[in-house]
Amino acid sequence: MKKLNVGLIGYGFMGRTHSNAFRKVNNFFDLPYQPVLKAVCARDEQKARPFATKWGWESVETDWRRLIERPDIDLIDICSPNNTHAEIAIAAAKAGKMIMCEKPLSMDGKEGEQMVKVIEKAKVPNMVWYNYRRVPAVTLAKQLIDEGRLGRIFHYRAKFLQDWTISKDLPQGGAGLWRLDVKVAGSGVTGDLLAHCIDTALWLNGSIDTVNAMTETFIKKRKHTLTGKVEKVGIDDACAFLARFSNGSLATFESTRYARGHKALYTFEINGEHASIFWDLHDLHRLQYFDHRDEGRVRGWRSIHVTDSDHPYMANWWVPGLQIGYEHTFVHQVADFLNGLGTKKPASPTFRDALETQYVCDAVLKSAKTNRWEKVSQI
Amino acid sequence: MKKLNVGLIGYGFMGRTHSNAFRKVNNFFDLPYQPVLKAVCARDEQKARPFATKWGWESVETDWRRLIERPDIDLIDICSPNNTHAEIAIAAAKAGKMIMCEKPLSMDGKEGEQMVKVIEKAKVPNMVWYNYRRVPAVTLAKQLIDEGRLGRIFHYRAKFLQDWTISKDLPQGGAGLWRLDVKVAGSGVTGDLLAHCIDTALWLNGSIDTVNAMTETFIKKRKHTLTGKVEKVGIDDACAFLARFSNGSLATFESTRYARGHKALYTFEINGEHASIFWDLHDLHRLQYFDHRDEGRVRGWRSIHVTDSDHPYMANWWVPGLQIGYEHTFVHQVADFLNGLGTKKPASPTFRDALETQYVCDAVLKSAKTNRWEKVSQI
Amino acid sequence: MKKLNVGLIGYGFMGRTHSNAFRKVNNFFDLPYQPVLKAVCARDEQKARPFATKWGWESVETDWRRLIERPDIDLIDICSPNNTHAEIAIAAAKAGKMIMCEKPLSMDGKEGEQMVKVIEKAKVPNMVWYNYRRVPAVTLAKQLIDEGRLGRIFHYRAKFLQDWTISKDLPQGGAGLWRLDVKVAGSGVTGDLLAHCIDTALWLNGSIDTVNAMTETFIKKRKHTLTGKVEKVGIDDACAFLARFSNGSLATFESTRYARGHKALYTFEINGEHASIFWDLHDLHRLQYFDHRDEGRVRGWRSIHVTDSDHPYMANWWVPGLQIGYEHTFVHQVADFLNGLGTKKPASPTFRDALETQYVCDAVLKSAKTNRWEKVSQI
Amino acid sequence: MKKLNVGLIGYGFMGRTHSNAFRKVNNFFDLPYQPVLKAVCARDEQKARPFATKWGWESVETDWRRLIERPDIDLIDICSPNNTHAEIAIAAAKAGKMIMCEKPLSMDGKEGEQMVKVIEKAKVPNMVWYNYRRVPAVTLAKQLIDEGRLGRIFHYRAKFLQDWTISKDLPQGGAGLWRLDVKVAGSGVTGDLLAHCIDTALWLNGSIDTVNAMTETFIKKRKHTLTGKVEKVGIDDACAFLARFSNGSLATFESTRYARGHKALYTFEINGEHASIFWDLHDLHRLQYFDHRDEGRVRGWRSIHVTDSDHPYMANWWVPGLQIGYEHTFVHQVADFLNGLGTKKPASPTFRDALETQYVCDAVLKSAKTNRWEKVSQI
Repeated sequence: MKKLNVGLIGYGFMGRTHSNAFRKVNNFFDLPYQPVLKAVCARDEQKARPFATKWGWESVETDWRRLIERPDIDLIDICSPNNTHAEIAIAAAKAGKMIMCEKPLSMDGKEGEQMVKVIEKAKVPNMVWYNYRRVPAVTLAKQLIDEGRLGRIFHYRAKFLQDWTISKDLPQGGAGLWRLDVKVAGSGVTGDLLAHCIDTALWLNGSIDTVNAMTETFIKKRKHTLTGKVEKVGIDDACAFLARFSNGSLATFESTRYARGHKALYTFEINGEHASIFWDLHDLHRLQYFDHRDEGRVRGWRSIHVTDSDHPYMANWWVPGLQIGYEHTFVHQVADFLNGLGTKKPASPTFRDALETQYVCDAVLKSAKTNRWEKVSQI
Repeated sequence: MKKLNVGLIGYGFMGRTHSNAFRKVNNFFDLPYQPVLKAVCARDEQKARPFATKWGWESVETDWRRLIERPDIDLIDICSPNNTHAEIAIAAAKAGKMIMCEKPLSMDGKEGEQMVKVIEKAKVPNMVWYNYRRVPAVTLAKQLIDEGRLGRIFHYRAKFLQDWTISKDLPQGGAGLWRLDVKVAGSGVTGDLLAHCIDTALWLNGSIDTVNAMTETFIKKRKHTLTGKVEKVGIDDACAFLARFSNGSLATFESTRYARGHKALYTFEINGEHASIFWDLHDLHRLQYFDHRDEGRVRGWRSIHVTDSDHPYMANWWVPGLQIGYEHTFVHQVADFLNGLGTKKPASPTFRDALETQYVCDAVLKSAKTNRWEKVSQI
Repeated sequence: MKKLNVGLIGYGFMGRTHSNAFRKVNNFFDLPYQPVLKAVCARDEQKARPFATKWGWESVETDWRRLIERPDIDLIDICSPNNTHAEIAIAAAKAGKMIMCEKPLSMDGKEGEQMVKVIEKAKVPNMVWYNYRRVPAVTLAKQLIDEGRLGRIFHYRAKFLQDWTISKDLPQGGAGLWRLDVKVAGSGVTGDLLAHCIDTALWLNGSIDTVNAMTETFIKKRKHTLTGKVEKVGIDDACAFLARFSNGSLATFESTRYARGHKALYTFEINGEHASIFWDLHDLHRLQYFDHRDEGRVRGWRSIHVTDSDHPYMANWWVPGLQIGYEHTFVHQVADFLNGLGTKKPASPTFRDALETQYVCDAVLKSAKTNRWEKVSQI
Repeated sequence: MKKLNVGLIGYGFMGRTHSNAFRKVNNFFDLPYQPVLKAVCARDEQKARPFATKWGWESVETDWRRLIERPDIDLIDICSPNNTHAEIAIAAAKAGKMIMCEKPLSMDGKEGEQMVKVIEKAKVPNMVWYNYRRVPAVTLAKQLIDEGRLGRIFHYRAKFLQDWTISKDLPQGGAGLWRLDVKVAGSGVTGDLLAHCIDTALWLNGSIDTVNAMTETFIKKRKHTLTGKVEKVGIDDACAFLARFSNGSLATFESTRYARGHKALYTFEINGEHASIFWDLHDLHRLQYFDHRDEGRVRGWRSIHVTDSDHPYMANWWVPGLQIGYEHTFVHQVADFLNGLGTKKPASPTFRDALETQYVCDAVLKSAKTNRWEKVSQI
């Protein structure tokens, strides 16, 4: 088992999920590589130091350029805010590092294109952390679709509902709140939440041709943490859009941070000629499956407790009936990435895959402004 | 279509469910008979009169003996309190009337035996209103079991939970509260609620050999509505028992009126070698079904929305997806009774069938006193 | 209690639901009027006769004009296909009859306007059968919203999913299938299913300003039952739209007959500042309610079993825990209509109310053609 | 942060859950101690070695006595089969080691008494791994009960259903199957599954006075893996019992490995005067809570997604809506154990606490033989 030295940039929420994944992946998966937590990078050394101690990162850097220059680093993992992804990823690629990048890939499609161009020229392994593909129930859905069980697809519907920004007193910007600052986040729920829905949808149901969207910012002004002033809110609090996939199916997508009662309710449903599938993040260990070919009298939605050894990834964990949770999706992603290294089938989504999601987001945001259907750029 | 003249005794809650069933059964089912609401009987004419008007009963009687004597009455339907069933049923049988009787059949097995003896000697059609057999989902369960889909049965578990008598201020006895008066009701939850569970169980899983029970009366004294005095409560507020069926399966049964949050939660589950079934009265239009023979990866509990035309009784109602409710079970029972008249397969449960439930109740109440396993008398 | 003589036009599925409602409403509700099933009208006497017998309609007519002329008829109830509503309703109004009309009101808004004009001039009591307003759980939702419990509304989402027309072999037109014939139905799922969603939404959340829709016809040609030829299908098999309400809330609506696993899954959810509500037709006796003002640690979606006597309409039925079903919504609607007669608060939705739904449908269908946002005509 | 050197005995399923817990606890919890994975002990070095490598155990021992003698070991963690617990624990206590022991504590109460006697005399910190107490939803239930929210308790019901031993072809004994060998396991579902239910019940609802049980062995003979012969099966495949708690509440408990469709369905429900609680292991991140004091019209079971920062343990994990799983209960137990060291409130359940569960199991198994109510020995 070869060592693979990781340099992490960012120590926030995603820094924790990634650190945990790197640390435990070899305990549960037999892999050709073992990630080594070599260095964590953050501007504020006072904050990075305890993080490094807590998670076992061997060293601390305060300048990401310095980290990239280090010859003992094999892989750069980008967990810093969205507006930093491009610059770091491009520099890392040029330095010949493998790259993992938090989603969304970039501030917009144009920026993403540049990233893909450089990364592909550098031929470095790369991946974007759209972790929900690796929920075992979601991967099972992918298997069922790929096996043709659903037949022709008629409908796709996804939503991602949260309720944590309803209060008017919540400021924008700063630690933990940069997602409300459009200059840092690029967009609101579109890049933060819908990007997840879109990534899964492209994976499960193929490319999207056209979209028609509306967005809304319910609270127009919020105090900015960094400036101390009340400023206009530039992000979208809510976004819903209609879409048509290349396979002829129709879709509705919706996301908001103003849906009382939903903490992180990402759900999707697919209706095919023969069968349908439903999943939701609040009970992520279950898949709902309906097969019309079942005998009529005993036909019904099956609630599949995705914890058996013949379910994706689950042979590596516990025994049937014992569920895993959110953090395991990151472990799976690392495992797949490591297994894909040096093969002809690198783990997805690559930067190129993630660019496709970026194009959909662009079309969605554009449509919300033009008030008409917009075509999605295709790679 | 022949007319069948009905004489109803009692005008309480069950008087309403039966009146509704007699009135509407021919609108939905093609039957050889049409019930005619000929007469309702109650001691208090002042109360019976508006009831008759509301439901279209043609006449009112105040003495049930007089009702039985009427030559224009074909069928006597007994909805009066438990302690009146035997005397009325025996008199009606001797007068050659068909008889329907509310459950439980009798105050105890001994009384029930006398009833069965007279009724069978008189050869009059007879039935006891264990209406839950006619919930389409429950009838579907019966079909699946009879088809051998479950294989060898290992477990049966049933419970009936309510929460309406928790208050200490609730009196016992009198209108609407006679179920708390042991002299009128015979027992508490055992005869009222567990009798339902037992009837279904005997129907679905065969006879019960032995039982081992405990009962409790949480509130020991209550004011009696009729005497105005605080009196000892004689009924069981809660009863739970273990049982062994003749087919080798093990069972647990439980009932109480002290389970906060449950209005009328009757549930049962059966675990067989190949498949399992679960049903509950709070969502009576659904049956949960698990079949181990389903392919492993997509195996799960199926939530069957029992509203299709190939589901029991449902072709007579609306269209798929549109549920029926509680009252329809009584309509089904009347339909089955009328269809069974003059055939060699009369509708069940007959008085004889209901006597078997009575024997189980007797053994349960006896066991609660002796604190040991008791054998169930077999017919 | 005064008699109110009803003349029913049509004897199909809706003819059954209405007959049942007229027959049983007085058994459960104390009302100033008693509907009398005076006459049923259908072109084919051979089919109407057994229907009349089954339900107790006193006479049969084969020409609706003749029915309207009869002086012994007080109320005309229109259950015939959509393309007949206007002519009959206008004639009935001119004859001074009360009118009940199945939904949707008309083939389009223009036709609906004419109907409203004549009906209001004639000052006859009138109502459209948007029955889902009378599901007790839905009425409870209305109460909670009117009491201001949700606060400012951010989101409304509704869908109505079915799966009964997926087979290519299903013909269009003729008995039971006129909903697939655009000349008779006016539209597909928009008028059949979304009209229900829109009616509820307008009632619960106020008027809709603008919509943006897409429609699809998955199976382009079907054999026509009446002509025997394969003909182009003119209806929409699926329709989804974005909307903005006057109160500033955003909405998504979707309907289809191509969603495997859903028989009649009408669902809606409303997200307000303080609370959210969810309901679905497949378990119509439950309301899901989330109140953010609940203490944090024990905050969660409450599954309300809407069967208590303090729930809308339920004091008239059985006891807590015992559910009612689909047909009862029609009983409630008749009860409300009869109670509203002669008062200043006639039961809704009136023809005028239903016209508002028609305007939304028009805008939706127009938008699906123009591919842009369309304003909804306001009354 | 002090180091605490751990010596693990056993490398099976529980060896994995404990290793994982020791490894990651400090990443998520701020604690006074850091467990060091010092040595793992197993008879077969060939198997222990790769386990040690995978999990980072520094050394391997093949004789547990040798492990106990090592001066660099602070804590002995016993994950070997039930029939080895006593000897090891007693030796470890005498050597002055802290002890953690997998459940059940011992083969029976008598053996457990000896263990408690020695351990308490040695005054070494000790704990038994009844991990389900540390499911956040279960801990929340404990909080709610301790706050008096439920009022007087009337009912407790628990069950633990599995379906993995239904096949007649499954052998008994040997690696992974020692739970079917009575000489190694002591009992079947009683010690394996009901022990969990009993531990939780004692914690939540206080002591149990008397029990009345039945057990069954459905498959009487199985091939023994070690002897190669078909031998009588000595364990109980299923066990159900009635119980009375000291607080006056009634209980039913049931466990089986013959319930098709249930992988590891541990559920409990508690009904109190004012409120009720329900939990199940298949959706362990949720707690169902019903509070009768809620306003009538909006009263219902609340489905609490126990993932908020004010829920037990959850501030240490992710953000609201993102669930944890089975393995985290072990992490919590280690965290609590480490926090309890040197305080006057050591983490529970101690060996003494676990002995109480053993007494209940003894009474249950005895009652299943005597066929009568048996008193539970009290500590």
